[in-house]
Amino acid sequence: MKLKVKDIDIASGGPLIAVMNHEDAAMLDLHVMDRIKIKKGEKIETVVVDIAQSKKIVPKGRLGVFEEVISSLKLKNNDNVEISIARKPLSLEYIKKKLDGQKLAKEEIDQIVWDIVHNKLSAVELAYFVAACYTNVMTTEETILLTKAMVKHGDVLKLNKHPIIDKHSIGGIPGNRTTLVIVPIIAAAGYFIPKTSSRSITSPAGTADTMEVLANVAFPLKKMKQIVLKTNGCIVWGGALNLAPADDKIIAVERPLEIDAESQLLASIMAKKHSVSSTHILIDVPIGKDAKVKNKFEALKLKNEFEKIGRRLKKHIKVLITDGRQPIGNGIGPALEARDVLWVLKRDPRRPIDLEKKCMMMCANIFSMAGLKDGYKKALEILNSGKAYSKMVEIIKAQNGNEIAAEDIKIGKYSHDVLSSKSGRVIAIDNMLISRIARIAGAPKDKGAGIYLYKHVGYKVKRGERLFTIYSESKHEFEYVKDVAKSCKVFAVR
Amino acid sequence: MKLKVKDIDIASGGPLIAVMNHEDAAMLDLHVMDRIKIKKGEKIETVVVDIAQSKKIVPKGRLGVFEEVISSLKLKNNDNVEISIARKPLSLEYIKKKLDGQKLAKEEIDQIVWDIVHNKLSAVELAYFVAACYTNVMTTEETILLTKAMVKHGDVLKLNKHPIIDKHSIGGIPGNRTTLVIVPIIAAAGYFIPKTSSRSITSPAGTADTMEVLANVAFPLKKMKQIVLKTNGCIVWGGALNLAPADDKIIAVERPLEIDAESQLLASIMAKKHSVSSTHILIDVPIGKDAKVKNKFEALKLKNEFEKIGRRLKKHIKVLITDGRQPIGNGIGPALEARDVLWVLKRDPRRPIDLEKKCMMMCANIFSMAGLKDGYKKALEILNSGKAYSKMVEIIKAQNGNEIAAEDIKIGKYSHDVLSSKSGRVIAIDNMLISRIARIAGAPKDKGAGIYLYKHVGYKVKRGERLFTIYSESKHEFEYVKDVAKSCKVFAVR
Repeated sequence: MKLKVKDIDIASGGPLIAVMNHEDAAMLDLHVMDRIKIKKGEKIETVVVDIAQSKKIVPKGRLGVFEEVISSLKLKNNDNVEISIARKPLSLEYIKKKLDGQKLAKEEIDQIVWDIVHNKLSAVELAYFVAACYTNVMTTEETILLTKAMVKHGDVLKLNKHPIIDKHSIGGIPGNRTTLVIVPIIAAAGYFIPKTSSRSITSPAGTADTMEVLANVAFPLKKMKQIVLKTNGCIVWGGALNLAPADDKIIAVERPLEIDAESQLLASIMAKKHSVSSTHILIDVPIGKDAKVKNKFEALKLKNEFEKIGRRLKKHIKVLITDGRQPIGNGIGPALEARDVLWVLKRDPRRPIDLEKKCMMMCANIFSMAGLKDGYKKALEILNSGKAYSKMVEIIKAQNGNEIAAEDIKIGKYSHDVLSSKSGRVIAIDNMLISRIARIAGAPKDKGAGIYLYKHVGYKVKRGERLFTIYSESKHEFEYVKDVAKSCKVFAVR
Repeated sequence: MKLKVKDIDIASGGPLIAVMNHEDAAMLDLHVMDRIKIKKGEKIETVVVDIAQSKKIVPKGRLGVFEEVISSLKLKNNDNVEISIARKPLSLEYIKKKLDGQKLAKEEIDQIVWDIVHNKLSAVELAYFVAACYTNVMTTEETILLTKAMVKHGDVLKLNKHPIIDKHSIGGIPGNRTTLVIVPIIAAAGYFIPKTSSRSITSPAGTADTMEVLANVAFPLKKMKQIVLKTNGCIVWGGALNLAPADDKIIAVERPLEIDAESQLLASIMAKKHSVSSTHILIDVPIGKDAKVKNKFEALKLKNEFEKIGRRLKKHIKVLITDGRQPIGNGIGPALEARDVLWVLKRDPRRPIDLEKKCMMMCANIFSMAGLKDGYKKALEILNSGKAYSKMVEIIKAQNGNEIAAEDIKIGKYSHDVLSSKSGRVIAIDNMLISRIARIAGAPKDKGAGIYLYKHVGYKVKRGERLFTIYSESKHEFEYVKDVAKSCKVFAVR
């Protein structure tokens, strides 16, 4: 069937979708979510069918195409294309198989990941895959196959060095910016640490957002390799690279129900690490009621799985279970966190001691994995000698940034102090509310927005004393966030 | 936040969706599939958020709205509306709970069905519900609650009569048009049988499509009631009524993976029956490799479930397990099937005996449920006396149709005979290919398109003898279907 292209000016955000008029669709006996092949010249692309019931958007004889199809086939409005029926992707059978509780084979997992990466599955179909892996938990074997498939269908960083260090903190803890302290210490010690990080999705800042205050974070793989070979380390945004790209698409459909299939969490983290060829990986699993991992039991289960998969992928893995009941550090939001980090590296008296201690402990573990003795002492020595700071400056410059004094980092000009309504001891801080307020203040979109904490759990506080300050860059958001903060009980004091 | 409406001229096909520019969304910390309240004057509607990354479709300050939102809030382009953050529907928590393998309570199932009926869930979210019920099979208790909730959130036909007869054939068998024979027989015997039927989704004809050859099938509930009170029966399209509307929305997301959650199949059928207040229900479960139910084991399991639910809903239920290995009757496609039915009712020698026998057997079972003895004899007597035909004419007229002779039913003018390539005995007919060819010929869109079978399984056939004829209404489809038929092996002859 020949149809004339109509650019309907919408992006699906992933899946390749084309819209046919219901009369044309009936001709080929097509239904919503069936597949068609679109042929333009020598190029062919298989896409998901959507059907328009009226002639308003897509009249008979036209083929409405989403942005993704336009760019894949380099189409222009009114182009003539040839349409034919295509089989549904094989991976739908395999997803059904998993939903039926069966174990998937290597080729099957491979096909599913290929189809995800190439936008061949609709969001509904992908949701079935997530649901299948969530209810019929993948075996360790399947998780390893999923990890390998995710790495295979994406780019890989090859450094030909040994060891290659990596670390990962599981999310949900505001301010937990250990990466920016650990990477320069490990790199200064002479090890390679090609670190990729994420931007925030639901938090006030991801590590990539915070690093962006100091340097660029979006680089192609080739440039990332140059930076690492030059400075031993990097702190770049994983989203700009094509490392295990299936992962991001899976995460997007997990959100509505806040599903976190353990096998996908494991595969996701391990795939990102595997795709930068890391050999020694430290995993930080914070536990707390607002953290991703709620209790020690879950954490131990996860630790066990990580270690099993690590052995199978021939990687050294160490899992640390840490305290995730309150924010780490004082600053929450990109600029405020970057300032904390520089204070730690510069040995400034204003540095947050909790963040520093956690980083020292993590470095000690990394050094011990790499075969070094007295790791804690070594890490502290690198930090105290200023070598960590110098290395950070080196990395910042390699990532097209400039050295900047902590004090010169721009913080939001509107500020509002939240005071304690009574005297006593801080017994809890609500991580969810901290995140929410910092986000409404403008973080991570506005780098200078966020929260600065004066108190942590266990601290004494007097009535009328400051608990935290909210910073905003815009008047509008500032007025709104002040109202929100008024109605929230962020600190529990007794 | 105040935004100006932009009609983006697209229907979602169900869910209420509005598109915000990414900058506005960031202001309220909103993500894809979060919820917002839209307020226009006194009207408020909660909708699912989609986010536009460029300003092409939805610039900052605008709110792109899908057709469903336009009609729900009676919006016009450039209307000013007030936006605020809304909580996600409670039902998402319950869907997650089911996905976690827990049993759902009455209020939880009720809330899910309410949200489905009111278009509060996105397709992805609905897919999670289907997946949850598929992998964590619902208990009989839950299925009953789901059935009741589906009935509650929709219209109900109340007749104040007893008994009220109903029947249902589970799908997948081409030509299985028993309803059009059974309804007039039961009605002629003095029983009430308010039958609703579906249109085809993937088959060459649904019962409603076939009835539509003879009369109208789309009526509001009030008119349906009048027809039934006047003639004792009706054969109308369920889709025009608002009986258990959640069901159709669930079926739509089941399609991509061809998932058929048993609990949903049960709830779907029982809800449709319950919503017309039937008291005595006969269920026909055909088994065959291309049928919905593949084997006797599955059929017996289903029978057991139907009976359990029937008892709990205080209904008389009888389940017949029938042969679904080949088409029933000779005509496949609306007009060809309608002709078969009239031939049976008119006692024409050309009538398909297999269809007639099945209908007699089903009527006998219905009569016996209703307490009548010698049901088979009674059914045959009503048929042979012409009372069934008279009743059918009465129903056709009540449904705004006219009496028509079977010969006057318009069959597609293009026809092509498919001949046997060898002599022998028919050992199998491929139901899937029969359906596919009939659909490509134009059925059910073109009423006169389809297939007429001369042979059934067990029949002898000579080389060069006709196996079936394909009918089309349009030259274009005719040429295409001839090609398709050439490459298919529909009959197995040995």
